[in-house]
Amino acid sequence: MNLDIISIGDELLIGQTLNTNAHWISKQMNAVGFVVREQVSIADTEEAILTAVENSLGKSTVVLITGGLGPTKDDLTMPTLNKYFGGKLVRDEGVYQHIEQIITSRGYVMNKNNQDQAMVPDNCKVIHNENGTAPGLWFEKDGKVVVAMPGVPYETKAIITDTVIPLLKAKYELPEIINQMVYTQGVPESMLAELLTDWEDNLPSAIKLAYLPSPGRVKLRMSSVGKDRQQMQVAIDEQIEKLKQIIPDNVYSEDNEDLGELIGKLLREQGKTLATAESCTGGYIAHLITRVAGSSDYYKGSVVSYANEIKINALGVNAADIEQYGAVSQLVVEQMVLGVQKNMQTDYAIATSGVAGPTGGSVEKPVGTVWIALATPDGIISKKYQFGKLREVNIERAAMAALGMLRGWFLLTLLYVMCV
Amino acid sequence: MNLDIISIGDELLIGQTLNTNAHWISKQMNAVGFVVREQVSIADTEEAILTAVENSLGKSTVVLITGGLGPTKDDLTMPTLNKYFGGKLVRDEGVYQHIEQIITSRGYVMNKNNQDQAMVPDNCKVIHNENGTAPGLWFEKDGKVVVAMPGVPYETKAIITDTVIPLLKAKYELPEIINQMVYTQGVPESMLAELLTDWEDNLPSAIKLAYLPSPGRVKLRMSSVGKDRQQMQVAIDEQIEKLKQIIPDNVYSEDNEDLGELIGKLLREQGKTLATAESCTGGYIAHLITRVAGSSDYYKGSVVSYANEIKINALGVNAADIEQYGAVSQLVVEQMVLGVQKNMQTDYAIATSGVAGPTGGSVEKPVGTVWIALATPDGIISKKYQFGKLREVNIERAAMAALGMLRGWFLLTLLYVMCV
Repeated sequence: MNLDIISIGDELLIGQTLNTNAHWISKQMNAVGFVVREQVSIADTEEAILTAVENSLGKSTVVLITGGLGPTKDDLTMPTLNKYFGGKLVRDEGVYQHIEQIITSRGYVMNKNNQDQAMVPDNCKVIHNENGTAPGLWFEKDGKVVVAMPGVPYETKAIITDTVIPLLKAKYELPEIINQMVYTQGVPESMLAELLTDWEDNLPSAIKLAYLPSPGRVKLRMSSVGKDRQQMQVAIDEQIEKLKQIIPDNVYSEDNEDLGELIGKLLREQGKTLATAESCTGGYIAHLITRVAGSSDYYKGSVVSYANEIKINALGVNAADIEQYGAVSQLVVEQMVLGVQKNMQTDYAIATSGVAGPTGGSVEKPVGTVWIALATPDGIISKKYQFGKLREVNIERAAMAALGMLRGWFLLTLLYVMCV
Repeated sequence: MNLDIISIGDELLIGQTLNTNAHWISKQMNAVGFVVREQVSIADTEEAILTAVENSLGKSTVVLITGGLGPTKDDLTMPTLNKYFGGKLVRDEGVYQHIEQIITSRGYVMNKNNQDQAMVPDNCKVIHNENGTAPGLWFEKDGKVVVAMPGVPYETKAIITDTVIPLLKAKYELPEIINQMVYTQGVPESMLAELLTDWEDNLPSAIKLAYLPSPGRVKLRMSSVGKDRQQMQVAIDEQIEKLKQIIPDNVYSEDNEDLGELIGKLLREQGKTLATAESCTGGYIAHLITRVAGSSDYYKGSVVSYANEIKINALGVNAADIEQYGAVSQLVVEQMVLGVQKNMQTDYAIATSGVAGPTGGSVEKPVGTVWIALATPDGIISKKYQFGKLREVNIERAAMAALGMLRGWFLLTLLYVMCV
């Protein structure tokens, strides 16, 4: 069953506000069983609103609208919908009292704008807005539903969770939808597609596959719509097992985890600790690890050694080696990783040293050259990567590759244990 | 002149990917002088793409499309546009060589997917994609333009900046639009609006004002549309001068600089150096500083001291003080900042220690409690902040507050120099 989302507001069209509402609502509606057909962002004008509603009602059963419900003159959603559905505005006592309570609790007196917000169309169901003054409006026409909600994200989230989803579930019979993510690393999208050609061609028709590339990773999404959730999940799990046989070293998670979370889970499970020594990634790996709640259980810290003297003083790198081989070299990155592993007394350590760009490159070591080292209880591994020209992307890719090396190590260890 | 943005991809409609492309593109196109009429996100199907393009071309002069240009089977944008514009696919040698160069530099051999990406419609202008394998496609019809670009944000950003904007400027006569950002810090949005009431009411009608709050900052956006750019800028600058008289300590930049860039500029101008010691911010401050190109000139590094033993061993914090006062305390954060300033031999240093959450809070130090210290050549300053409950927001706000303390110091020094 199709559902459209209409976001109203000039702030979206001039690139002032990122449309997180459409994103969040889509996720909820997809989970409930709707197919989101279209998200559209339009201006605060009667013409734009009427055109969008008319268009969406022609294609979809449910239309969810956010924005333009405020108390000021530039908010046109309510009068426009009232006109479209041919109702008239009447004062709603419940809404009036709720607005009055909010306004007076803030130490203000009701003004005309506040009073006008209690005037609602007489042919819609009024939805209580616990967190704000503008109520939600639920219109029905020919078995279809149009809901208007405020643009303020936390107000609309509560309205959707508390009222809209229960009402939609009661009104329509909805299918089960599964979107299963499989994260892969180490193979570019085009190569991955080639490796997976046969597997992809033989996927059951009920499973739809998508490739989602991002720096250093390719996510695979397997989607399925049906009635029996358990059966659908079994079918997807079967395909993931087959996938793992084709690219065992590249699948790193079947859940919606990022690498920072996954590394954390692996370290926690094994009771091991980690430290990092970052040059070109400049603290970004530490951030990816520490933004995960509870990371202090396994992560001891990082030395962001941007200057060579810090590499020498805080990590024990040999100054003569920096002089002779450069900071971006295997010898230096290995000394960095051993230095931080020793100083912070951890089981594992990761170090990076590279040319993030845009300056600092040479013929021998162009921008994008990055050395990464991993220290484990059983020895160290180091590897040279050649990324691209964009500084921020190089930082991202180097961080992903570094976490990927640690993930790879855990995988190898696990395979070894399984095989012995 | 109207412009539409079409974003293609099921990942948007299922709420998996936040549509940052439409947001960023809208901002750029607004700055160039276009009116963004509509942003629409649709599925990867021929029908949806054809309908959206047809609809947009009926209402707007320029249509910018992102997504669905990859090498895999779920990418339908190119064949669909080729069908719509009635062309045929031919091999583009320049594109072929670029793809080959990327693929071989990564150590792979060209496969059929890669080769197919060099097959482009013969009736469009091919746009070089410096950062990826899928080229941009520029179609023209009846004085209107349709451009298809990849969905990967950094690829599309470069294509738009380097090629699409110059071509659109050459083709159409566009009005001048100024969007002047004024960054403020230290006053919440509602108080700021109150402080600025008179100033706002007396703005010239040609200048439109918007408030953009984000964790730890409020940006003010002053917009103006017209023909004479210089005149428009003079009018805006006059208003900024008035604004500075009202909130002199809170305006920190009039350019589109973030705090990381601004701090870098200030340090560079004065030939000073910085180091950081991060506990609760976990490397995020280091990342904000080092993602700025050239930051190695003034930034020496960071000790991300997540574990108490690192605070003790690497920063010289007194273990007894951690025991007695806790790691989140004035005494400890001051020892951290002095430790890193001394060890890394820098002019300035910043340290953070706090409870990012969601766990680790207590009655005395609830989640969101953060101590920040700044070491300068003239002594140290430390301050306690109380942020909210969300971990990622707390990390962001603490980092902003820390960089803000350094900015504030520079401002005070500057005022002092000016007054003496």
